[in-house]
Amino acid sequence: MKRPLILVTNDDGFHAPGINALTEVALGFGDVLKVAPDKPQSGMGHAITINSTLRIEKMPAEGYEAYQCTGTPVDCVKIALDVILDRVPDLVISGINHGSNASINVIYSGTMSAAMEGYIEGVPSIGFSLLDHTVDADFTTAKIYAEKIIREALNQKDQTYCLNVNIPKLEPDLIKGIRCCRQAHAKWQEEFDRRTDPSGRDYYWLTGHFVQFEQSEEVDLWALKQGYVSVVPVSYDLTHFKTLETLKTWNL
Amino acid sequence: MKRPLILVTNDDGFHAPGINALTEVALGFGDVLKVAPDKPQSGMGHAITINSTLRIEKMPAEGYEAYQCTGTPVDCVKIALDVILDRVPDLVISGINHGSNASINVIYSGTMSAAMEGYIEGVPSIGFSLLDHTVDADFTTAKIYAEKIIREALNQKDQTYCLNVNIPKLEPDLIKGIRCCRQAHAKWQEEFDRRTDPSGRDYYWLTGHFVQFEQSEEVDLWALKQGYVSVVPVSYDLTHFKTLETLKTWNL
Repeated sequence: MKRPLILVTNDDGFHAPGINALTEVALGFGDVLKVAPDKPQSGMGHAITINSTLRIEKMPAEGYEAYQCTGTPVDCVKIALDVILDRVPDLVISGINHGSNASINVIYSGTMSAAMEGYIEGVPSIGFSLLDHTVDADFTTAKIYAEKIIREALNQKDQTYCLNVNIPKLEPDLIKGIRCCRQAHAKWQEEFDRRTDPSGRDYYWLTGHFVQFEQSEEVDLWALKQGYVSVVPVSYDLTHFKTLETLKTWNL
Repeated sequence: MKRPLILVTNDDGFHAPGINALTEVALGFGDVLKVAPDKPQSGMGHAITINSTLRIEKMPAEGYEAYQCTGTPVDCVKIALDVILDRVPDLVISGINHGSNASINVIYSGTMSAAMEGYIEGVPSIGFSLLDHTVDADFTTAKIYAEKIIREALNQKDQTYCLNVNIPKLEPDLIKGIRCCRQAHAKWQEEFDRRTDPSGRDYYWLTGHFVQFEQSEEVDLWALKQGYVSVVPVSYDLTHFKTLETLKTWNL
């Protein structure tokens, strides 16, 4: 069997501990190409660079190829697939993100947008996130479950998908297992922190707290709270079919 | 009846002709607050500003309130709802974008992410895009249909939704009507344009062409090609329910 080719990216930047952990896991399965942003890109969503130029720089790496890129996480995937690689990878993996991308966070997440871009290109893709946003987060548990999920993903034939995997901040023996879920209905309630600069002008920091609207056992936030690793398959078809029905009653 | 309050934003920036056209339409219906990025933010997707500060600046405007904001389109909606306004608007409208946001473009679009953010906050929201990306695009047709759709939206009671409206580049009398659709399956096929800078280092421009995978009469690209204004309701629940079924066969 040919060794699988795995593209590894993230949004926390080339030097983040989380992508190093994920790269180590990927090297257990096949050939690895790492292409990551040259600076942190958290909260970049599905941003792409169209009004400025992109550069890539080959970086030293042992046993695999690595580049840092001046663009967004989505740019990294595009440039990896279209410029750096001469064959289609078997898997795109993104992360391990320092912090949760469960529920509505998927919308704002550069980690998940990178995975989504792989999926749009027809490559099975998985984003991994650990529920610990600190730079010195312990990735032991996350690596165990990334390894398990990547192994099973590589066993599948002729499927494309994009998975949003979130891992609780727990010791490995406290994890109850893996649970496939739907995205919980929740949102960020913003609380802008207003400050005044030395010249007397106001500026704002975006802060907020998370509001969960449902407690169903079917959703990712429930699974994570119980100590499960959550897996939510995501779609790039955003059509809201229920509203499409409602629109028939509009006079358009 | 109380005059409706309408929040107007975009991703082409505060001074783009498209948002001026949309503001004119909005003023026919109620009180208007315009909050738009201080520079073009096309392709920003659902990006938010978390590692730097945001500023807003009150701008001169006749008959309405206006601010420009240093952030992304999504930041504009957040700061409008949470800092500038003291009541919830009746409608968030975004655009009129210079260029299509039909099909997969919805994923990359700052215009649509701004509308989506309104929807996440529980406010009915509509993004409008004209299939002409030039700065001197003619918004005559787009204004007529924006007016028609906003009027009908304000007639609805107790609904929340986010609509992705695209308008063909056609004279008003050549438009066949409005068609509610689902998002067409398509993607951008990237073609990175590699160049060399004066110091001999490579850099890239992201370019590409659009590939449409389906011709169904149910999809937005079909409607637009036939001369209809397309309306696709969009969702922030990205769960791919079909894949959720498939995952049951995985050994997780």
